[in-house]
Amino acid sequence: MSDRLIYLPLGGAGEIGMNAYVYGYGPVGAERLIVVDLGVTFPEMEGSPGVDLIMADAAWLEDNADRVDAIFITHAHEDHIGALPYLWPKLGAPIYARPFTASLGQQKLNEGGINTEIKVIAPRPDVIEAGPFKVQFVPISHSIPESSALIIDTPAGRIVHTGDFKLDANPIVGEAFDVNMWNEIAQEGNGIKVLTCDSTNIFSHTPGKSESTLIEPLTKLIQFQEGLLVATTFASNVARLKTLADAGVAAGRSVCLLGRSMKRMVQTAQQTDVLRNFPSVVQPEEAADIPRENLMLIVTGSQGERRAASAQLSRGKYLGLEMKEGDAFLFSSKTIPGNERGVIRIMNAFSEMGVDVITERGGLYHVSGHANRPDLEALHDLLKPQMLIPMHGEHRHLREHVKLAKSKGIAAEVATNGTMLELSGDAPVIAEYVETGRTYLDGNVLIGAMDGVVRNRIRMALNGHLMINVLIDEDGGSLGEPWVEAMGLPAKGRSGQVLVEQIETELTEAIDRAPGKVIDNDKKLEDMMRRVARSCAMDEIGKKPEVTVVISRLQDE
Amino acid sequence: MSDRLIYLPLGGAGEIGMNAYVYGYGPVGAERLIVVDLGVTFPEMEGSPGVDLIMADAAWLEDNADRVDAIFITHAHEDHIGALPYLWPKLGAPIYARPFTASLGQQKLNEGGINTEIKVIAPRPDVIEAGPFKVQFVPISHSIPESSALIIDTPAGRIVHTGDFKLDANPIVGEAFDVNMWNEIAQEGNGIKVLTCDSTNIFSHTPGKSESTLIEPLTKLIQFQEGLLVATTFASNVARLKTLADAGVAAGRSVCLLGRSMKRMVQTAQQTDVLRNFPSVVQPEEAADIPRENLMLIVTGSQGERRAASAQLSRGKYLGLEMKEGDAFLFSSKTIPGNERGVIRIMNAFSEMGVDVITERGGLYHVSGHANRPDLEALHDLLKPQMLIPMHGEHRHLREHVKLAKSKGIAAEVATNGTMLELSGDAPVIAEYVETGRTYLDGNVLIGAMDGVVRNRIRMALNGHLMINVLIDEDGGSLGEPWVEAMGLPAKGRSGQVLVEQIETELTEAIDRAPGKVIDNDKKLEDMMRRVARSCAMDEIGKKPEVTVVISRLQDE
Repeated sequence: MSDRLIYLPLGGAGEIGMNAYVYGYGPVGAERLIVVDLGVTFPEMEGSPGVDLIMADAAWLEDNADRVDAIFITHAHEDHIGALPYLWPKLGAPIYARPFTASLGQQKLNEGGINTEIKVIAPRPDVIEAGPFKVQFVPISHSIPESSALIIDTPAGRIVHTGDFKLDANPIVGEAFDVNMWNEIAQEGNGIKVLTCDSTNIFSHTPGKSESTLIEPLTKLIQFQEGLLVATTFASNVARLKTLADAGVAAGRSVCLLGRSMKRMVQTAQQTDVLRNFPSVVQPEEAADIPRENLMLIVTGSQGERRAASAQLSRGKYLGLEMKEGDAFLFSSKTIPGNERGVIRIMNAFSEMGVDVITERGGLYHVSGHANRPDLEALHDLLKPQMLIPMHGEHRHLREHVKLAKSKGIAAEVATNGTMLELSGDAPVIAEYVETGRTYLDGNVLIGAMDGVVRNRIRMALNGHLMINVLIDEDGGSLGEPWVEAMGLPAKGRSGQVLVEQIETELTEAIDRAPGKVIDNDKKLEDMMRRVARSCAMDEIGKKPEVTVVISRLQDE
Repeated sequence: MSDRLIYLPLGGAGEIGMNAYVYGYGPVGAERLIVVDLGVTFPEMEGSPGVDLIMADAAWLEDNADRVDAIFITHAHEDHIGALPYLWPKLGAPIYARPFTASLGQQKLNEGGINTEIKVIAPRPDVIEAGPFKVQFVPISHSIPESSALIIDTPAGRIVHTGDFKLDANPIVGEAFDVNMWNEIAQEGNGIKVLTCDSTNIFSHTPGKSESTLIEPLTKLIQFQEGLLVATTFASNVARLKTLADAGVAAGRSVCLLGRSMKRMVQTAQQTDVLRNFPSVVQPEEAADIPRENLMLIVTGSQGERRAASAQLSRGKYLGLEMKEGDAFLFSSKTIPGNERGVIRIMNAFSEMGVDVITERGGLYHVSGHANRPDLEALHDLLKPQMLIPMHGEHRHLREHVKLAKSKGIAAEVATNGTMLELSGDAPVIAEYVETGRTYLDGNVLIGAMDGVVRNRIRMALNGHLMINVLIDEDGGSLGEPWVEAMGLPAKGRSGQVLVEQIETELTEAIDRAPGKVIDNDKKLEDMMRRVARSCAMDEIGKKPEVTVVISRLQDE
């Protein structure tokens, strides 16, 4: 029998973000496939300026779209669901999710003009059959409602794919981590062959804290404030929104939500019945009339995003609301590495207004949604998998998780994006490397990260851009001087001459000197002019700009 | 008597970096001036792509250059000394520094082709007279040798300008914090009128730790390693270099320094006699022949800088040396906010090589060079200043420092860059706002941060760049189609047409339709073409690019 069980991460393994995992079972090269999560990651100026979203390169999946039997979404965080509108059209397989997740995903699809209906499914014991796979959604605690691990039963054995999770016995909103149920799952049949496991917090050495530990400190903090209180957290952390809102109401404050994504989350959570007893909120236009000591805003933008409510408030009036001296701003969130500058910018803007900024203070006002190292160990011990495949982490996280697993006698392997593992045997074996990478949503176009488009933007940002225009007449002479325009370059350099004029002069001389075989050949003429322009710029301003040359040749008519 | 005492920060107040402080004494508007520190800060892709260095806008100082009597450099960190070669030529005043600092500054000046000699001076009780000021350099502990606070005696009273400092009774290299001496300084004459004080670590609530606390953990750690050990720290932290090197030698390893700035630091420290008994080091070419378990590299690049030794080693062979499985890499440093991505990139690259990465682990392998909040309070209590002016901090640090000072009955005021305080009375009073900002070194040209040059680069990075060329003949018709080139834009958009061809088609139609008064007017024609091109691009690719239009008009000859 030549059937094999394979695992292939296309995103999320070797990075935190844009999760996309593939499992396959069947004859080599003809395995039936399922996809777990299709998420995005966010661009940044350094590596992906101007890009709107980043997701896995789905070329391999697209090539094998006829083999894909289903797509499962574990939870509604952007890094698990955000690529659906862009990548689903390439795959076309049915999508399965629990109600809250499905509702958010459906909104995304519809906004992208896609009409396919996400199939809403119930948790275990319900089973979805997809090719050779039998899949169950298992409630697991995380920082968004209805997060699920997947039990993926295959002819080669049982896989547990944790999705994102933490061990939380009292998560405020959503389902607690249920030790008894997981124990049962581990004991059924032949036990668990493969645990594909969240690795994000492997370097956090203390046990994670429950969402419920925040109620008391947040309530105390909020009661103590004398001016307007504004709190930000991740829009999707519905439990936190509830804790904050409850604490605000207990302190005699009206609560107002600012930010589209936050309102959508609360609304969707209420509609799908995962959020109950959320206090009634006031609209921004009403809020403006409420005395500030009786008002609490819960706002988006905990990561310093420029267009979110936090940043807007830090720049001045937003929807008629404004912060001022004596008010307080609470980050009930942690800053994701890479977002520090944006967050610090906001903190200082508030400081200039005389607003007190309160940060998480080592877990008093924020807890992580991911399992820390001792929690990961507890899960390993509970599930006793034969193999462990770390996912959802940078290389250092995956490697550390493998070391941890091996130290406990569990077979384990680092598999980063594109690494196909065969899981049919007793230990994971690298079967193949699949070419993969990142796809950018740029405006409304999907482009490859390595297409050169973004590389050229980065080069223009670093070096500036010179545009050279030259008109060659019928006799091979330059008609007038070459015309040079510059963008993103200093007007004048070392000589005190205007830079573009200096370059024009040198280009004119070069053209006058150039032999006919250069003048007559677009490529040679272009190379020559580029060389002259860059060398002149280097001399004048100490930089070699990007250069675009346009040669117009007048033809005899 | 109309003489007044003023303080004017031009850099370092409202940010961490590019320190530049001015003190003045004399008749209003004709005060004699001294400058304390002329530092740089470092560019980043988000706000200053392609820029080489950032420093204070010295326009105000330049306008008043004839009033500047002296420049004092407190210590040789780049954010205190780095702008000397660029800003000194605008001021021309004598520069004073202690020997190690002066030597590093002199190297910088000479490399910049500037021949002025920095005046090497000895610490208190030596006094430099500069106009109405009498200045003493007072040794104070920090993370680079010979750091100094300044006592600035003026007719209006004594100022203590701390420079960067920590309270370290045993700093390994350089002078300890001397409580008795500072007590004496506080008691002389009428005591201290103004304390201008480092604010960097105001939010760190535990007392700072001595450099000497690292010896034991670092020695143990290094002894325990079995492969090649590579350690990185700030090149200028000569004490740390010594601790690391001593620990390496004690563990039977040969020590090799990699990175130009690190070698220069050690060499200069030895030449100026601030560093003694540094173990002898081997050169990279010798190091390659030493068994890896007997070798330790101390390398630059603790902040993830792409060209430094750490990053080079993370990408492969560097100067014949290479890391591999079983080796270890130690960050004996903290990551400065904003540098996380670069540092994490290196960590993951090492992880892929199988190299264990060891981080500071909450102070075990790194301590800060700045005074924490309790240390700041200790200094306030020791010096009992009448006023406190917080410096060297973002707005939130300065504001918090003012709150702390006021809570203890010390008059204090937040003064960010450009805020001139009058210090003649009993409390600081805002006298004036001076227009200031940032100057960029871009290639070899100094440009203003607000000149638009860098803004245009950022726009090209975000939006891409379209270049349109059109040739208008003698009769006002377009000669051939307009020619469009794109840089940093997807090749094709929604319609499946080649983007630039689609734009060319629409431009041709627009020109054909355009009335003579548009065709004949460069400005109108350009605006029209820009509008058409942007609208077509928006339609096709969902982005509005930057557009440069070049109109060539053929004249009757």
